[in-house]
Amino acid sequence: MEKKKRVYVFGNKKAEGAANLKDLLGGKGANLAEMDLLGLPVPPGFTISTEACTEYYTLGKEKLFEILKNEVEHGLKHIETILGADFGDPDNPLLVSVRSGARVSMPGMMETILNVGLNDITREGLIKKTNNPRFVYDSQRRLIQMYSDVVMEKAAGIEPEEGKGIRQLLEAELEKLKEQKGVKEDIELDAEDLKKLVDIYRAKVLEVLGKPFPEDPMEQLWCAIFAVFQSWNGKRAVSYRRIEGIPDDWGTAVTVQAMVFGNMGEDSATGVAFTRNPATGENMFYGEWLPNAQGEDVVAGIRTPYPLNEATKTEYNKHLPSLEKTMPEIYQQLVDIRNILEKHYRDMLDIEFTIQERHLWMLQCRVGKRNGTAAVRMALDMLNEGLIDEKTALLRVKPIQLDEMLHPLLDPASEAKAKVIAHGLPAGPGGAYGKIVFTSNDAVEWAAKGEKVILVREETNPEDIDGMRAAEAILTARGGMTSHAALVARGWGKCCIVGASDIEINLQKKEMITPAGIYKEGDMISLNGTKGLVYEGQLDTISPSENPYFIKFMDLVDKYRVLKVRTNADTPQDAKIALKFGAEGTGLFRTEHMFYGKGGETPLFILRKIILSTKEEERRKSLDELFPFVKEDIKNTLEIMDGLPVTIRTLDPPLHEFIPKNQNARESLAKELNITIEELNNRVDQLHENNPMMGHRGVRVGITYPEITEMQVRAILEAAAELIKEGKNPKPEIMIPVTAIETELQNQLEIVEKVYEEVKIKYNMNEIPYEFGTMIEIPRAALRADDMAKYAQFFSFGTNDLTQMTYAFSRDDVGSFLQEYLDKNIIKFDPFQIIDRDSVGELMKIAVERGKSTRPDLHLGICGEHGGEPSSVEFCHMIGLTYVSCSPFRVPIAKLAAAQAAVKE
Amino acid sequence: MEKKKRVYVFGNKKAEGAANLKDLLGGKGANLAEMDLLGLPVPPGFTISTEACTEYYTLGKEKLFEILKNEVEHGLKHIETILGADFGDPDNPLLVSVRSGARVSMPGMMETILNVGLNDITREGLIKKTNNPRFVYDSQRRLIQMYSDVVMEKAAGIEPEEGKGIRQLLEAELEKLKEQKGVKEDIELDAEDLKKLVDIYRAKVLEVLGKPFPEDPMEQLWCAIFAVFQSWNGKRAVSYRRIEGIPDDWGTAVTVQAMVFGNMGEDSATGVAFTRNPATGENMFYGEWLPNAQGEDVVAGIRTPYPLNEATKTEYNKHLPSLEKTMPEIYQQLVDIRNILEKHYRDMLDIEFTIQERHLWMLQCRVGKRNGTAAVRMALDMLNEGLIDEKTALLRVKPIQLDEMLHPLLDPASEAKAKVIAHGLPAGPGGAYGKIVFTSNDAVEWAAKGEKVILVREETNPEDIDGMRAAEAILTARGGMTSHAALVARGWGKCCIVGASDIEINLQKKEMITPAGIYKEGDMISLNGTKGLVYEGQLDTISPSENPYFIKFMDLVDKYRVLKVRTNADTPQDAKIALKFGAEGTGLFRTEHMFYGKGGETPLFILRKIILSTKEEERRKSLDELFPFVKEDIKNTLEIMDGLPVTIRTLDPPLHEFIPKNQNARESLAKELNITIEELNNRVDQLHENNPMMGHRGVRVGITYPEITEMQVRAILEAAAELIKEGKNPKPEIMIPVTAIETELQNQLEIVEKVYEEVKIKYNMNEIPYEFGTMIEIPRAALRADDMAKYAQFFSFGTNDLTQMTYAFSRDDVGSFLQEYLDKNIIKFDPFQIIDRDSVGELMKIAVERGKSTRPDLHLGICGEHGGEPSSVEFCHMIGLTYVSCSPFRVPIAKLAAAQAAVKE
Repeated sequence: MEKKKRVYVFGNKKAEGAANLKDLLGGKGANLAEMDLLGLPVPPGFTISTEACTEYYTLGKEKLFEILKNEVEHGLKHIETILGADFGDPDNPLLVSVRSGARVSMPGMMETILNVGLNDITREGLIKKTNNPRFVYDSQRRLIQMYSDVVMEKAAGIEPEEGKGIRQLLEAELEKLKEQKGVKEDIELDAEDLKKLVDIYRAKVLEVLGKPFPEDPMEQLWCAIFAVFQSWNGKRAVSYRRIEGIPDDWGTAVTVQAMVFGNMGEDSATGVAFTRNPATGENMFYGEWLPNAQGEDVVAGIRTPYPLNEATKTEYNKHLPSLEKTMPEIYQQLVDIRNILEKHYRDMLDIEFTIQERHLWMLQCRVGKRNGTAAVRMALDMLNEGLIDEKTALLRVKPIQLDEMLHPLLDPASEAKAKVIAHGLPAGPGGAYGKIVFTSNDAVEWAAKGEKVILVREETNPEDIDGMRAAEAILTARGGMTSHAALVARGWGKCCIVGASDIEINLQKKEMITPAGIYKEGDMISLNGTKGLVYEGQLDTISPSENPYFIKFMDLVDKYRVLKVRTNADTPQDAKIALKFGAEGTGLFRTEHMFYGKGGETPLFILRKIILSTKEEERRKSLDELFPFVKEDIKNTLEIMDGLPVTIRTLDPPLHEFIPKNQNARESLAKELNITIEELNNRVDQLHENNPMMGHRGVRVGITYPEITEMQVRAILEAAAELIKEGKNPKPEIMIPVTAIETELQNQLEIVEKVYEEVKIKYNMNEIPYEFGTMIEIPRAALRADDMAKYAQFFSFGTNDLTQMTYAFSRDDVGSFLQEYLDKNIIKFDPFQIIDRDSVGELMKIAVERGKSTRPDLHLGICGEHGGEPSSVEFCHMIGLTYVSCSPFRVPIAKLAAAQAAVKE
Repeated sequence: MEKKKRVYVFGNKKAEGAANLKDLLGGKGANLAEMDLLGLPVPPGFTISTEACTEYYTLGKEKLFEILKNEVEHGLKHIETILGADFGDPDNPLLVSVRSGARVSMPGMMETILNVGLNDITREGLIKKTNNPRFVYDSQRRLIQMYSDVVMEKAAGIEPEEGKGIRQLLEAELEKLKEQKGVKEDIELDAEDLKKLVDIYRAKVLEVLGKPFPEDPMEQLWCAIFAVFQSWNGKRAVSYRRIEGIPDDWGTAVTVQAMVFGNMGEDSATGVAFTRNPATGENMFYGEWLPNAQGEDVVAGIRTPYPLNEATKTEYNKHLPSLEKTMPEIYQQLVDIRNILEKHYRDMLDIEFTIQERHLWMLQCRVGKRNGTAAVRMALDMLNEGLIDEKTALLRVKPIQLDEMLHPLLDPASEAKAKVIAHGLPAGPGGAYGKIVFTSNDAVEWAAKGEKVILVREETNPEDIDGMRAAEAILTARGGMTSHAALVARGWGKCCIVGASDIEINLQKKEMITPAGIYKEGDMISLNGTKGLVYEGQLDTISPSENPYFIKFMDLVDKYRVLKVRTNADTPQDAKIALKFGAEGTGLFRTEHMFYGKGGETPLFILRKIILSTKEEERRKSLDELFPFVKEDIKNTLEIMDGLPVTIRTLDPPLHEFIPKNQNARESLAKELNITIEELNNRVDQLHENNPMMGHRGVRVGITYPEITEMQVRAILEAAAELIKEGKNPKPEIMIPVTAIETELQNQLEIVEKVYEEVKIKYNMNEIPYEFGTMIEIPRAALRADDMAKYAQFFSFGTNDLTQMTYAFSRDDVGSFLQEYLDKNIIKFDPFQIIDRDSVGELMKIAVERGKSTRPDLHLGICGEHGGEPSSVEFCHMIGLTYVSCSPFRVPIAKLAAAQAAVKE
């Protein structure tokens, strides 16, 4: 085969890899090499590249084995040489861990197998060497437990019944043994117990899986390597990649590393830490540890871990011993390493370490996940500390993370009066309320029905992600700040409390027992994720008080940003929120909004008369009735956005959308129109369309019923005229939707100009400033943008419709196959969420170029929902738009995306 | 104002214009100038350019008058000088005609006013000069009749009640006078009668229109000029332009020319002629004339005219005197002129002439309209005669005209037994049957309901065009071969009989009295337009026998043609017809056709089971049931097209299109599927889509239900394999519809390749030739054609859907505004009929370029309905497609369009 290098060794301060080889070695492998090069204590090992993972899927296991064999053996020899121990050696055996590591962290989504190389022969050598038989037997039973689950069951594709997995069955044997011995904790079992357990485990494995547990160390190693590759396509991993948008073809690397043991007694320990607080951003070393334990004990949230140091103790863990106090010299070594790493990486890091008989080993370091609040604070702090520059600070926050800072908190006034029913670790800040659900499935189902839910779990595991996604917040009875629930919730900026040990969950009865009483499925609770408090009932929520970090960060954003950001706002309330978040005008005001919802009954009734009338005269009369409502509505929005542009779109939806479905409403309409109900129904039937999205709507209505456009234009210009008379500075922009042909614009512009002259006379004014423009939402309009720009002073891209037309995907109907398209990798993302640069984007580019060729000072915006999506905002910046427009809560997100796009250029 | 020249004089063999100035001077003005330059006898005159017409509409009458005044006066002086007579002179007055003339002939659609300059003073001078008072009074009453109609009523925008127009009212006065005098023909009225009539007319005009008839010659002239400009936007003209696709902004020129009189006695005459027979193409001078008449008498079809010469007499006019016999020397002069003109113009010409006291004057010459049959024959004859070359011959036939040669004739066997009920002039060849209707409105309404109708009229006038369009054929009681009905019908290739003088029409009773009996509205008759025979009842029709001219012409077409022409054919019958017309394969075979219509009940029932089943297993079972039907169907079409490519499209429509609406069918389905009717209805509801055109259809179904694609592909490949075993040469092309993304193609190709391997094994074959390709019918697919071509060996443009998506026009719903878009000039043509080169065309061009960049030997076709539309075919040639595909009857049309495109290059 090819001469390509697939295995990269590290250890002894010399490494073949480095942090910049993340794509090839995965985050874990690359950073182990980097730490090794930095002189930090790293157990020696080697990493098999992600390319081998791809080959695993294209060439198959057998071929890959042939390819890798020599290199892996060479890597093993490298470890053996450094440690002076041999893999499979009866006297001085080397044990290794086999771990996954993708380009980006996918916490808990793939597999790890520890203690590989242990069997009945090597364990004797290890007992002799460590003089610690209990530890050795414990290691062996852990190997069997993990290996049988990961390699023999999962990688083999066996799907056991719920709760009957080999892991649970072996777990049950452990519990049984503890019961027999009358003990509560694993630690209370002695060497002989564990030795017996190893035999019990092996028998169980043979019984359940029909195969003996393999004793050959090399077989263990190879099968473990392949199982890790296989886990790249495990259900959890695939599902996580979908949500996070990680490409399926990246693959995972595999790192094989000499085992070090945190479970060799009270002078051993294991821990994880963040170089700064990942929930608040505070510049404090922050972590958790457990003596006499292996890494999984901390990460999996099975035991509540101890705090790393005194300064970060909370009221919930202040009684537990810190590493700082327990092993001060090791802690100091760790603090030094923290400082070296932060200075080297210039970022907050998430590290894993193990202390084996008072010797510190670094097992992992990676850039740490943080929530939005923390990301903003860290970026600004590191900027102040001189670690990074302004541009880097800007790039440190994912635009979407700002969302977290804009979301509600519990109202302290409401909290003061509320009943606390449980306490836990504040794993995800913010406030939320919702109805209790106990399973991931229920969370998804209830949320789909529009319920706000809180997912309450003993602990979460990677199988729960869909439910965690669907829930308003997450509450777990076990687990620490670095448990699965905490990591995932923080990644998404979700309110989350973990380790609420004062609650007990009865999954059968679907109830939660707290010191304050029993709460059942469907009961309402509220969470303060910043303090870790659980309340009974639904508390009030409030907007986040003006966070000074947020304000400072947005100043930095505005300093680099080129693209303007407007808002899509139909109501004064929305417009006010958007202004608070720094919107620079309204990019989309939909005139039709006034017909929806409360307060719209009267205008809607008049509109219905207009639609169902067959006589122009009748229509004109009704339009006169409607006029004051429309003018009032437009005047309000222009007034709130005083001095800023407001793009007002003329009527857009197909007319039949406004027709009542129910008989009573139809009867009163018929009466008003003085026609029979049969005739009314006939007219309604005539309005029916097979494909309304491509039917008689938008400008098409404005052309067939010019009096409708006329009324709207008059309302806009009269509203503006009146505001000017009142000393205001309105900036209306009249926008025509659904245009495809220049003559449509010409036709509507004639109406605008006619009405303009009339309104000027009526108000005795020389000028009423306004602009005239069009949506670009139909492929033809994009292609003929040079023609459209003859009449339009501005374009606003309607990327929702443009995506519909470009793909021929009906947004209302795409649900019937979109998920399958994503699952089958037909598409990489939902084009209604992210602009497809390859098609919709190309049409936009064409429209920009051609539009500007006719009118160099053409204003260019976007008002589709993509306007608040970071990748799409970046694209809008790249093609030279003037502004994006998005929903009020997306304004800061769009601004950051715009600034990052400018910085990246 | 500008120095632009607006008036061009001619006369005395010197002319400022010429034939190549048609755009400026209109056809009439340009050709008068040309004939003048050729030395033919043309009364002097001048032409006001079409640009002045445009100015009439932009600047208004008053401004235009200022602009034109000097030039028109100069033109008048020019005529006066040549003729030695003065406009308005009491002693030797000059009279002029004022005629319209657009770039292309619009017969009868605009206005003409004759005898301008006559009043009570000038008539005395003219009487003295001609010594023919009867002629002078007759001319004066004609002037009043035309002028009051055209200028005072129509141009003024007065809309009288039906039958109460000033023209009819004056006509009635004429009839009244004839009754009083006890005479039948106008000619029997003497000078005094006509003098009296002039006074009666003037009184009537004043009474009805409230204004006196103007006596001032200059006022008459100017008002007449403006009335002609005004008539450009008359209802008839606008309607005609819509049908013929003539741009509204061309405008008409106005020609003012010295009057010559065919009505000065028996040595005067007027006539029209074609240099060859416009109905058959025969190389014979062909025309009609009337002694002592003005041109309108012949053209308007009021009097049945005489045959021009002996050779072209028919059994219906053999008793009438020919010009050849009556005035042999004039006839010979006309024959010489005919020869000069044909040699000069190298085309068949339509000429108008007037003989004033044995002096021949040429009043018009233009390229003559002809039907398809005649066009083909003339082109080939002139080619043989050396008048034109092959390329010119090809360009002489409008592709759409071939349609006429492909349409049915009456079956002679059926004719032999049928009852002839009337005879007339064979104005439009071919055969047709239909129900009698007597008004244009009825024709339109009945035809809209799907009835075949024959429009039977006394004579037709331009108001009748919509009804003529809607009718299968036209039958008139009066009028000659150059009457309005005859001209229009020939232009459209419609079967037409005119001057059937043995029928009498009673419009009140809606019945037609013939020698054979009375026929009422709704009675079925048949017409032989080639012979001029009307039959009772519905006769059989047959395909035209193989016309040798057609065959020869198609050989010429094939010689120059580059583009291949295939057919869209779903049935063996269609495929056979197409092959007869020279189709070079099937460009679109729709698998779904088998579920429609008779014989499709069983397959449709199975398909419904597939669609409504929720279990893959159940679906697979039903697919197995369906398989033999599909294979059989495909095998049939491959066999008929043996040796030629057949593009088979996999299932395209949204699945719910196949769901039964009626309850019985649903109940039997529920029973078969073993579910309740409620459950069935639920499943149907789930299939409902808001915009099915953009929904779950085409490849999207093939991806979500791969087993459906698999079954179809297996049917195609097995059918091909079996045919090969039978010694045939099948060339299947598998085409995937509704694709937008390369991965969709990749996915379907994997299925194809898998099935291919299986079928090869089943039939023990090494190879089964097939191609794999895709429709390009969604904008994204066009834009990403480079990606699509990675998997597709061919593209077929689905321009129906591509137009839908590019315009966001739903074809099913566009009716609600499309007509208004055409009427308001928002669009110039229906983009579903003609490819919009500006948008859909650009996407096609992009797709061709990008597709070829990936796969230089990519096959490119079109299977949308545009594939048979000449302008679209031309475009397909221009962008380098391999073939077009169209309905069988369009194959020759597409071929000619393709050849013309090649020739024009």
